[in-house]
Amino acid sequence: MPELRKDPIIERWVIISDERGKRPLDLVSPASGRKEPDYCIFCPGNELTSPNEILAFRNPDSDGTAEWTLRVVPNKFPALQSTGETGEVTEGMLTMMNGIGTHEVIIETRDHTLSLSTMNTKSAEDVLWAYYSRLKDLKKDNRFKYIHIFKNEGKDAGASLEHTHSQLIALPIVPKRVQEELDASLEYYNSNKECIFCNLISRERELQKRVIVENDDYIALSPYAPRAPFETWILPKQHQSSFQPYNTNFSGLAEMLQTILQRLDRHLEIPPYNYLIHTSPFSKEENEYYHWHIEILPKLSRRAGFEWGSGFYINPTSPEEATKLMCQL
Amino acid sequence: MPELRKDPIIERWVIISDERGKRPLDLVSPASGRKEPDYCIFCPGNELTSPNEILAFRNPDSDGTAEWTLRVVPNKFPALQSTGETGEVTEGMLTMMNGIGTHEVIIETRDHTLSLSTMNTKSAEDVLWAYYSRLKDLKKDNRFKYIHIFKNEGKDAGASLEHTHSQLIALPIVPKRVQEELDASLEYYNSNKECIFCNLISRERELQKRVIVENDDYIALSPYAPRAPFETWILPKQHQSSFQPYNTNFSGLAEMLQTILQRLDRHLEIPPYNYLIHTSPFSKEENEYYHWHIEILPKLSRRAGFEWGSGFYINPTSPEEATKLMCQL
Repeated sequence: MPELRKDPIIERWVIISDERGKRPLDLVSPASGRKEPDYCIFCPGNELTSPNEILAFRNPDSDGTAEWTLRVVPNKFPALQSTGETGEVTEGMLTMMNGIGTHEVIIETRDHTLSLSTMNTKSAEDVLWAYYSRLKDLKKDNRFKYIHIFKNEGKDAGASLEHTHSQLIALPIVPKRVQEELDASLEYYNSNKECIFCNLISRERELQKRVIVENDDYIALSPYAPRAPFETWILPKQHQSSFQPYNTNFSGLAEMLQTILQRLDRHLEIPPYNYLIHTSPFSKEENEYYHWHIEILPKLSRRAGFEWGSGFYINPTSPEEATKLMCQL
Repeated sequence: MPELRKDPIIERWVIISDERGKRPLDLVSPASGRKEPDYCIFCPGNELTSPNEILAFRNPDSDGTAEWTLRVVPNKFPALQSTGETGEVTEGMLTMMNGIGTHEVIIETRDHTLSLSTMNTKSAEDVLWAYYSRLKDLKKDNRFKYIHIFKNEGKDAGASLEHTHSQLIALPIVPKRVQEELDASLEYYNSNKECIFCNLISRERELQKRVIVENDDYIALSPYAPRAPFETWILPKQHQSSFQPYNTNFSGLAEMLQTILQRLDRHLEIPPYNYLIHTSPFSKEENEYYHWHIEILPKLSRRAGFEWGSGFYINPTSPEEATKLMCQL
C-alpha cells in the first residue's frame, strides 16, 4: 500500500509509492567517470580564465611555487550583480529588488579526475572551510540576508562543468523553503521549548529505521518524507543553529559527507546529485529553534522525485528501504 | 542588472537574470517530432493492454464500429491505490496516511502522430471535457479533497510514453502549493474584498507588458515572477473559483491553450513542457477569493528554471522578453 507522508517540519506531503514497479536500482542513470579533459577552465594552468580569485588554499609543502589546492572565484555568468543597492520597489501588488548579490564558485581541488567523494578527507575538510570562510566574509556586507551554499554534481543535476565545484549565492532575501523551515521551527519552539530538529534526531535514534550512520558529532538519516529516492540529511547531533565548525574543526563533517557520497556512488553507480546547506539567516544566526543541516538529493531518474508543480512529490523508494541499502558498507 | 522579483500571490522570490549569457533560443533542447511507432500501448488495437476503461469518447460518425477518440484508463503504475480508507496516523511528530487515491491517464487522441498543439480544436476541447467529467465523478468520493490534473509533454518533462496523454491524481490532501495560494488569496480577500487574481488580471491588462493573448473569456500572460523561461498562465477573465466550462463549453479555453502551445512549438522548437491546473479544493469549490488557472512550464534546459532546493529559482529570460516573442504569431 502506498503511503502519504507529511514532512514533520513543513507542511509538505509526499507519496511514497514502492509499488510503482521500480526497484531502486532500476532508477539509476549511467555512471559518469571523470577523465583528464582536453581543456578545462578550472584546471591548473588556466587560472587566468577565471580571474579575480576571491580565496585560495595553497599547499605549504610544495617547493617554491605554492600550488593552489582549492580556489574560490566569481561565477562567470553570475545570477546576481555585486555592486549597487537592493532598492526594493513595490508597485501595487508587484515587488522587485535590484538583483544584488554575489555568485561564487568553489573549485574544490586542482585534480580534474577527483570528485568530492574520492578526494582525500583533508581536501573535503578544506571545501567546508572555504564555505565557512566565505560565509563569515560575506556576512559583513549588510545588504545580504542569506548565503545559499549548494553543489550540483553531474550534468543531470545541473552541473555545467565537470571539474568538481560547489557554488554559493549571497542573497538580499531568505529563500522561501528556508523561511518556511524557520517559521515552522520557531512555532514549534514557542509551543514546546525545544528545537524540532533536536527532537527529530532523538526520535530517529530511538526508532533506528532511518538512521544511516553516526559519528561523534554528526548523524546522517533518510528523512521521514523524502522528496526523492535516497534523499539524505546530515545534521549536527548537538543543537547548532548555523553552519560552523564543531570543536574548531570540520573533520567529523567532512568524514560524514564523504561517507554518504561514497555510499551513493557505490550503491547507485555514481549518481548525479544536488546538495544544499540550510542554515539560519544572518539576522539571527544564533538561536534555540533552528538546526542547520545538509540536504543531499540524488537525481536518479527524470520522473522519480519529480515535483509535479504543486509542491507534492512521488517517491518510488521508501526512506526505510533506502536506509537499508545505505547502511551497507 | 538582474532583478529579484516576488510572486504577487505567494512569497516566492525568483532571480530574473537576463545577463547570464544565454538568449532564449540558446536554451532550447532538440525538437521531438512524433512518428508512427512500432508499438505503443496507447494506440488503437492495443486497448486490452490498458484495461478497465474509465471513460471514452467515441466518434458518432464512424460506420458500425464506433471508434474511440479519447480514452481515460487507470495508470498501470499508480502512485496511489484506489481501495481502502485514508486512516491518518500520527506518531509523535510523524504523520502518515494510507496512499488512497486514483491515478488515471487521459489518452487524448487515437492518433499517435498528433500532440495537444497539433490536434484539431474539437479534440482539444474533448480533453478538457474529459478532465471536467472525471473531476465531477471523483468529487462524489468523499475520501478525496483535491484532483491534481497535469500533463508532461516530452521525455525531458517526465513523459514516459510518447503518445499524447495527460494524467490526474485524486488526493486525500490538498497539495502544498495550491494550499499556499488558497491561504494567500483568502488573506488578500479578507483585507481587500477582492480576488487577488482578478486584480492581477486587470493590472496586467492595463500595463500590457506581460499579456500574451486574450480571447472573449480567457487571458494568457507571463507571470511577473516566473520560475522558468516562458512560463505562461491561462486564466478565465471573469472570476471563477474552480475549473469548469464557461457558458457551457470549453471552446474558448481549448483555443487559448492550443494557441499558447502552438506558439511555444513555433518559437522554441517544440519544447518539452509540463502544465497543471490549479483549482479550488472540493471542500469549497465555489468561493470569492480563489481563481482557477493553468500553469504551463516549458522545460528548456536543465539549468534554467532549476529549483535550487530552497524554493528559489534563477530564470535567465525575463517575462517581458518572453512575452514579446510569444506575442508573435
